[in-house]
Amino acid sequence: VSEHTWKTAITKIEPNFVRVRGYDIAELMGRVSFGSAVHLILQGKLPSEPVGKLMDAIVVSSIDHGATPPSVLAARTVASTGASLSQSVAAGILSINASHGGAIQDCATALGDVLRKAKDDSALDDAAAQVLDGLKASGKRMSGFGHRVHTADPRTARLFELAQQAGLSESGMTHMAAARAVERVFVTQGKALPINVDGAIGAILADLGFAPEVMNGIFMVARVPGLVAHVSEEQAREKRMRKIDPVNHAYDGPKDRSI
Amino acid sequence: VSEHTWKTAITKIEPNFVRVRGYDIAELMGRVSFGSAVHLILQGKLPSEPVGKLMDAIVVSSIDHGATPPSVLAARTVASTGASLSQSVAAGILSINASHGGAIQDCATALGDVLRKAKDDSALDDAAAQVLDGLKASGKRMSGFGHRVHTADPRTARLFELAQQAGLSESGMTHMAAARAVERVFVTQGKALPINVDGAIGAILADLGFAPEVMNGIFMVARVPGLVAHVSEEQAREKRMRKIDPVNHAYDGPKDRSI
Amino acid sequence: VSEHTWKTAITKIEPNFVRVRGYDIAELMGRVSFGSAVHLILQGKLPSEPVGKLMDAIVVSSIDHGATPPSVLAARTVASTGASLSQSVAAGILSINASHGGAIQDCATALGDVLRKAKDDSALDDAAAQVLDGLKASGKRMSGFGHRVHTADPRTARLFELAQQAGLSESGMTHMAAARAVERVFVTQGKALPINVDGAIGAILADLGFAPEVMNGIFMVARVPGLVAHVSEEQAREKRMRKIDPVNHAYDGPKDRSI
Amino acid sequence: VSEHTWKTAITKIEPNFVRVRGYDIAELMGRVSFGSAVHLILQGKLPSEPVGKLMDAIVVSSIDHGATPPSVLAARTVASTGASLSQSVAAGILSINASHGGAIQDCATALGDVLRKAKDDSALDDAAAQVLDGLKASGKRMSGFGHRVHTADPRTARLFELAQQAGLSESGMTHMAAARAVERVFVTQGKALPINVDGAIGAILADLGFAPEVMNGIFMVARVPGLVAHVSEEQAREKRMRKIDPVNHAYDGPKDRSI
Repeated sequence: VSEHTWKTAITKIEPNFVRVRGYDIAELMGRVSFGSAVHLILQGKLPSEPVGKLMDAIVVSSIDHGATPPSVLAARTVASTGASLSQSVAAGILSINASHGGAIQDCATALGDVLRKAKDDSALDDAAAQVLDGLKASGKRMSGFGHRVHTADPRTARLFELAQQAGLSESGMTHMAAARAVERVFVTQGKALPINVDGAIGAILADLGFAPEVMNGIFMVARVPGLVAHVSEEQAREKRMRKIDPVNHAYDGPKDRSI
Repeated sequence: VSEHTWKTAITKIEPNFVRVRGYDIAELMGRVSFGSAVHLILQGKLPSEPVGKLMDAIVVSSIDHGATPPSVLAARTVASTGASLSQSVAAGILSINASHGGAIQDCATALGDVLRKAKDDSALDDAAAQVLDGLKASGKRMSGFGHRVHTADPRTARLFELAQQAGLSESGMTHMAAARAVERVFVTQGKALPINVDGAIGAILADLGFAPEVMNGIFMVARVPGLVAHVSEEQAREKRMRKIDPVNHAYDGPKDRSI
Repeated sequence: VSEHTWKTAITKIEPNFVRVRGYDIAELMGRVSFGSAVHLILQGKLPSEPVGKLMDAIVVSSIDHGATPPSVLAARTVASTGASLSQSVAAGILSINASHGGAIQDCATALGDVLRKAKDDSALDDAAAQVLDGLKASGKRMSGFGHRVHTADPRTARLFELAQQAGLSESGMTHMAAARAVERVFVTQGKALPINVDGAIGAILADLGFAPEVMNGIFMVARVPGLVAHVSEEQAREKRMRKIDPVNHAYDGPKDRSI
Repeated sequence: VSEHTWKTAITKIEPNFVRVRGYDIAELMGRVSFGSAVHLILQGKLPSEPVGKLMDAIVVSSIDHGATPPSVLAARTVASTGASLSQSVAAGILSINASHGGAIQDCATALGDVLRKAKDDSALDDAAAQVLDGLKASGKRMSGFGHRVHTADPRTARLFELAQQAGLSESGMTHMAAARAVERVFVTQGKALPINVDGAIGAILADLGFAPEVMNGIFMVARVPGLVAHVSEEQAREKRMRKIDPVNHAYDGPKDRSI
């Protein structure tokens, strides 16, 4: 026989009950959003309703980023060989690593360093400058700031707005405050590197208590619907074994519209 | 150079705008749930708010099913070798196929056959009996009905309740009505095979207009948070290369509790 | 506890002995080639030495096909995100499907149809014509014949030569003979569609007794060294998250040379 | 358009020629073993015939290790959900990581440390003792020595024998000599930890000039035939969605036999 009985604290199965972290799923359904359920299963506690809404906004913000990220290209490349849906989506998931999605947790880790170096919130700018110097000295860049294409990403402003509505704060000893401190240091260095959507998510998830190691997992949750959409589109519209240009493509979907 | 410019109808990227199926993501954030965004990206249109809530309930209902499904065992087995998070979650996704998650689309397809065979809703029971006979004749079973463990799964009742609140119906020429017809035929055959959670999801997603081929994708969306939780737990609690018993384990998480 | 003791006929582990299909691996080492061991583990019997040599030639023939096959592009795309070696190679394996590698088994299956339709070898051409008509009628193409780039692939001639040295034959009721019959029918139709390397491998593996379903597995065996080489090169030479053009690349390795 | 033309030094494709590292594959076929071709594609040069034979022995030695390694359990678990062959084999590859296969490269790295610490071969035992102390101090174990089941693995002796026939040596400043030094230090510490098959492969591959980073790739090459065999057997013999006991199974294949 195999090793001793092992333990899990995630889900309990009993006849006619599936309980996630103690809550009956049938009770959760229709009462909490998927974002709240993600918070519950990963942190072990149900968030308040505004935090649940914030969690939804976070995963909505990253649901897709067009056809050029490596996760989409890997998923479409595999799909073009006649692969199944799960096989193609798995190839997309395999692409979510340090350089794709990883900016979220790298930013959260660096912001945590800023907080550890600062005595109180008046010292955040100095601490931020030290952390940036340290990264530079070891040949690394600060993740989560600046963007080649999106110079003023409205998703960032929206995330911070919803975070405030959920009771998080940009002042005090928070990761969000540390992120603002980093932004200020960049300004004094003459660099236009505003916090970007990855940085905002990293700061907010850290302030919500998520460990950096699990943040790439939340990015995976966010991206799977987009991967499914891209694989379905590849299977429906394209011929097998095509050469997929990683840049040269065009959008032909619905026109710009508003809710 | 590679082939001609190719087309995608999913997401348009412009400086400071990411538009999914025409909607600016920054506008969607905080205004629609993740379930609504999943509906949008897969069907190309935003659902009403009650349908969005129903979509959330569907993915919440399948967020995890304990430690024994093959997706969890594959993910934990890979994690136990020192694999990364994305690598382990990908192994879980690779397990979502015809026999794991596939009951949803198989049920939806069979219910579609019932609808196609029936002239009107008064003929649904006859059509259901024919479809069941046809499956039996070709050595197949009807998916989405009955369960070894959950004889009266409250998730099913809850899904149908939320579906009705979202304007779907168990009468008329709907997949939900066809599912009830199948249930009635089983009763006349002396079989206690009530519609289960997979069957309910299959009927509802079909009535919402989803193609069967994409339903396993929605199951993947639902399961990723659970896979992330199991891999994180494996990495945190267990020693590498352990023999993972597929049955013999125990739950040691939070006690039963209510919202 | 889990289900009853299950059975495997592949490998027996005892203290100081690992026996594959009955043979002690320590005895096999240095005495049989890897191709022979592949034959042993997949067919359950050791081949003769010339057949072992033929197996080696088959996997050598498919060890790599440059940078543009989807398996290589998927592996490199995943590697470019900071993935591990196994994670990147797995993405390559995920790409080996019906449209990539599948020609081998499709050809073997069609040649099997030719043999089943022919009373004896004098009827092979008629049977081949029937099979080609059948494929055409169902909108399919015969796999394993013709090539866009390699109009006279010397690998094909070499494989048939080695097959003859290993006791296989292009006459009689063999898959190799059926392949020649198909070639002749194409000539009578005015088509220059000589058997290509996939077709030659399919015919030979079928004559060696391999089931079509396992042939893609032999293609995977052959390609893994190439995938490892491409992932290592990507990690060593390229910067992360680059856009990998699927066509526009150049070879800068060793000059043409001979053994 | 995408980035500039990129470069690869692995394989050149021209009409009717596929050249790996400069050699025409058609010329290699039937003249070099698969092990030699693996050496060529990974190191850029053809080995001598005895080294090619040694390469074959290395991959033969690791072709399978029964049903319990995580790579096999992951592959069979995925296969049991109705997955394709490539999808199941990919799950096996995903399991080859630091704790599964990684002993080869860890051992090679540590043996390299021994060589770097020793002035000449008379100092190898002292250097080995230092490296073992260093590993112990940082809470690590020396990989590649000792085995729970195989106390005197004949594969190890066979590998060293074939290595000597290929011109490698257990004396002088070689990784093989360093491995013997480690073995001697263990003896002086009263530990019966002879070099095992992973350690022997690590030492030999390092002496052949392979970088530690690529060694897990060679282990992948070795294991794919076994993974294909296990997936095929799972598909042929077992019912879907079974609970796969990771320990409790029995061998029912061919009886012990000899070449």
